[in-house]
Amino acid sequence: MSHETPITIKIQDSDNVAIVVNRAGLAAGTVLADGTELLEHVPAGHKVALAAIPAGGNVLRYGEVIGHAIADIARGQWVNEHRVALPTPPRLEDLPLATRPAPEQEALEGYTFEGYRNEDGSVGTRNILGISTSVQCVAGMTNYVVKRIREELLPRFPNVDDVVALNHTYGCGVAIGAPAAIVPIRTLQNMARNPNFGGEIMVIGLGCEKLQPTRLLRPEDDGAQPLKVVDPAELEQDSILSLQDEQFNGFGEMVEGILAMAERHLHKLNQRQRETCPASELVVGMQCGGSDAFSGITANPAVGYATDLIVRAGGSVMFSEVTEVRDAIHLLTPRAATREVGEALIREMEWYDNYLNMGQADRSANPSPGNKKGGLSNVVEKALGSIAKSGTSPIVDVLSPGERIRRRGLIFAATPASDFICGTLQFASGMNLQVFTTGRGTPYGLAVAPVIKVSTNSTLGNRWHDLIDLDAGRIATGQASIADVGWELFRLILDVASGRTQVAADKLGLHNDLVLFNPAPVT
Amino acid sequence: MSHETPITIKIQDSDNVAIVVNRAGLAAGTVLADGTELLEHVPAGHKVALAAIPAGGNVLRYGEVIGHAIADIARGQWVNEHRVALPTPPRLEDLPLATRPAPEQEALEGYTFEGYRNEDGSVGTRNILGISTSVQCVAGMTNYVVKRIREELLPRFPNVDDVVALNHTYGCGVAIGAPAAIVPIRTLQNMARNPNFGGEIMVIGLGCEKLQPTRLLRPEDDGAQPLKVVDPAELEQDSILSLQDEQFNGFGEMVEGILAMAERHLHKLNQRQRETCPASELVVGMQCGGSDAFSGITANPAVGYATDLIVRAGGSVMFSEVTEVRDAIHLLTPRAATREVGEALIREMEWYDNYLNMGQADRSANPSPGNKKGGLSNVVEKALGSIAKSGTSPIVDVLSPGERIRRRGLIFAATPASDFICGTLQFASGMNLQVFTTGRGTPYGLAVAPVIKVSTNSTLGNRWHDLIDLDAGRIATGQASIADVGWELFRLILDVASGRTQVAADKLGLHNDLVLFNPAPVT
Repeated sequence: MSHETPITIKIQDSDNVAIVVNRAGLAAGTVLADGTELLEHVPAGHKVALAAIPAGGNVLRYGEVIGHAIADIARGQWVNEHRVALPTPPRLEDLPLATRPAPEQEALEGYTFEGYRNEDGSVGTRNILGISTSVQCVAGMTNYVVKRIREELLPRFPNVDDVVALNHTYGCGVAIGAPAAIVPIRTLQNMARNPNFGGEIMVIGLGCEKLQPTRLLRPEDDGAQPLKVVDPAELEQDSILSLQDEQFNGFGEMVEGILAMAERHLHKLNQRQRETCPASELVVGMQCGGSDAFSGITANPAVGYATDLIVRAGGSVMFSEVTEVRDAIHLLTPRAATREVGEALIREMEWYDNYLNMGQADRSANPSPGNKKGGLSNVVEKALGSIAKSGTSPIVDVLSPGERIRRRGLIFAATPASDFICGTLQFASGMNLQVFTTGRGTPYGLAVAPVIKVSTNSTLGNRWHDLIDLDAGRIATGQASIADVGWELFRLILDVASGRTQVAADKLGLHNDLVLFNPAPVT
Repeated sequence: MSHETPITIKIQDSDNVAIVVNRAGLAAGTVLADGTELLEHVPAGHKVALAAIPAGGNVLRYGEVIGHAIADIARGQWVNEHRVALPTPPRLEDLPLATRPAPEQEALEGYTFEGYRNEDGSVGTRNILGISTSVQCVAGMTNYVVKRIREELLPRFPNVDDVVALNHTYGCGVAIGAPAAIVPIRTLQNMARNPNFGGEIMVIGLGCEKLQPTRLLRPEDDGAQPLKVVDPAELEQDSILSLQDEQFNGFGEMVEGILAMAERHLHKLNQRQRETCPASELVVGMQCGGSDAFSGITANPAVGYATDLIVRAGGSVMFSEVTEVRDAIHLLTPRAATREVGEALIREMEWYDNYLNMGQADRSANPSPGNKKGGLSNVVEKALGSIAKSGTSPIVDVLSPGERIRRRGLIFAATPASDFICGTLQFASGMNLQVFTTGRGTPYGLAVAPVIKVSTNSTLGNRWHDLIDLDAGRIATGQASIADVGWELFRLILDVASGRTQVAADKLGLHNDLVLFNPAPVT
């Protein structure tokens, strides 16, 4: 029998279950703060009934029905997967659209950060020369020149933070006419226009590739503002270098050509200066990876709180990961600002259902045995933990994978849950900073935008002291509230966006490669 | 009217067309060496009839029917796509299997190279510490440690050529239970066992990923010989490091752990010595990329000649690129050594047909307008140019993507034509050296195995003097025969395999990333 102070977490007032935090669980006879006396042992991360739930009655967590009691559940009993019936999986027909008015949110005034304002009005948090590539063939070359640029040119341009090659595995040997090819192509087009690159587009191509470099300069009309208005011919001259160009006699001349082009762009980037910008210029991508039972209790709700703060300040937040929200989609469609946004949410779910079906992929293994052991009864509960990152704001827009952001507020950017594909697509959509929550731990980092890593439990936060930027595990132990950590995160976002605080991954130089989402065949 | 000496190329004695080589084409009235007088202008790369072909008669190139005359074609006329009817596309039913006896080939004795003999009998051409990864999350970390290992450890192990992180985008956020997941998983398992890594397997994992690191050590039974027989528990202890392991307090300790593991493997690799091995230990991957009209006339036939030499010496050659051989499959199935091999060829074509259909990809755009302009009348002619790399030997086995080589001789390794996916899959299959032909030019290079680049035309060979290893363009100008260049290539392969000659990409340090083939969905 444990003699620790019992700690449990209840997310919404209406919930009739709470989660046990104590590492050893809580023993029968333990009395909780609200007077509930445990009738049996309840393991850590698992649910205890805070009220009697009659057979067929709703089990409420996150203020939502996560299932129905199979038989009467008494107050103080363990509510596990054997006692909770799965609600019918959400069908995509007849979902409520834009039916739940968003809670009244007070505008948040006066918060600013020091950013790089671009000609199109967007704001970068970094000043980076991003070298786009039209095809994978040139990756060996771009890696070579990036090293040379860092060593030989960058020291002369102190206002420029870095030079990064946007290598990928697309561009040739792909079914470029397949319907789904629009996804990787759009992603490459929009990555080059991310605010952190300041409109200085530079593309290294080969020459004979299927994805011609000019296509990266002339994106299909997506309703987004161009970064700057220039003559297309001039842009091409200034921004594209093909290795097969007959002017280059061998490797040495190619390298000289690339260095000369890079230098011209570095000159322009070096003139950028940070200036005070309102928090409404933030475009923050929210993501989770390596999740555990605490993700939905600590880090993700705190992220949701920060999401609401950013939205109240007029800024933009993207949440994503189609496969992680699919089973809670009925909870998102009512939060759509308009019926059209609700319909767009459904369209993205349908697209992904089809994509998975084609590959004979199966969602039945979700949640995993590890998730269940950690206290997650079913996929609804898991998805609720994931969407907690979206806070309570209305969803004002839905982006297909890789589309560029069109309006401010809370946005669903449809992406796979795969960490680096999600990060790449959010970056293409215009993200200037990312927040990443993790329970098991991953050394995630991006070279193109700062990533704030938030741990869901203090065990990880302490062990990975030099890899984690903010520990949300303190919420579980009662040392901080969701609001406390939400505010801390919001302030940290402003500091990191301003370049005042360096994130762990940047301090260590730990950066993962960007990964394109190519749902079409390779050839 | 041109006053140059007319140059044309006829591949097989039975051909009734030849290809014009002269850059400006050949004018009407030109008389060829065989007495054929041109009746009209024929452009460079295009075909001229060497004999009268009656309406409905066979147009023969590469000794094969590439189409039928739509109307009578007179000797000396231009044979272009308007005068040649496409043969019916090859159906996969009722193909002739193993019907054409392979030409008698004399065994080639006495050719050797200096290689690294492994415990399983395989032979490496390099001595490399390959660091496998079970998931993309660790790529930032492996890049970091590889730099440290190169700087701090490698100088103490002079017999070790390099350390390479086998980064990829698989391992988590993927439909790991989908039927097609076997392809990337098998590829990772077999890459780690490539002869160039000497059996010293080292895997960096995260901990919570779907593809557990132990799976990389215990490949599904594929009939291949294990690299060395060791106790599984010992292998795991010696070969797997997971970043989430609780023994590591933070980044610094992870790095120390990886460096210590790397040092143990470097000690063993450093004991490897080159020894004289028969040419029968060669496992050469043949590939083309950035092809032009001369690919099928110069470089690919010379590669085919070298293929036959290697096979005659008892060695192994893989040719690949399903989408490039699909339209000439009826010419390959007769060359199968057995009916079973022929059936396996058809099975791989069927698989790819289905895969492309699922993505609504279309082969109708092949050949491209550029191909036609260059003289390729149709897809059969294009495919013939590609399969010229396979020479004339019997096809003794077919590998599904990423499977490990099982027998010696000419092997069809089924891969996409995408350059780096093909290279990665051939490497996983056990390739210890690659030959890459290119007409337009690509700076292709791999860190894990030497790549010999062969130009199809001397214009490229001269311009890319420091990027091309061998110019087969001399065949078109009559300076060398196919046999001459085939022998040159064979000897160069032996020199490069021995470490006596360094290929251009290695001299310059130009290396592309490996790219996995994942036909299954991401999640």
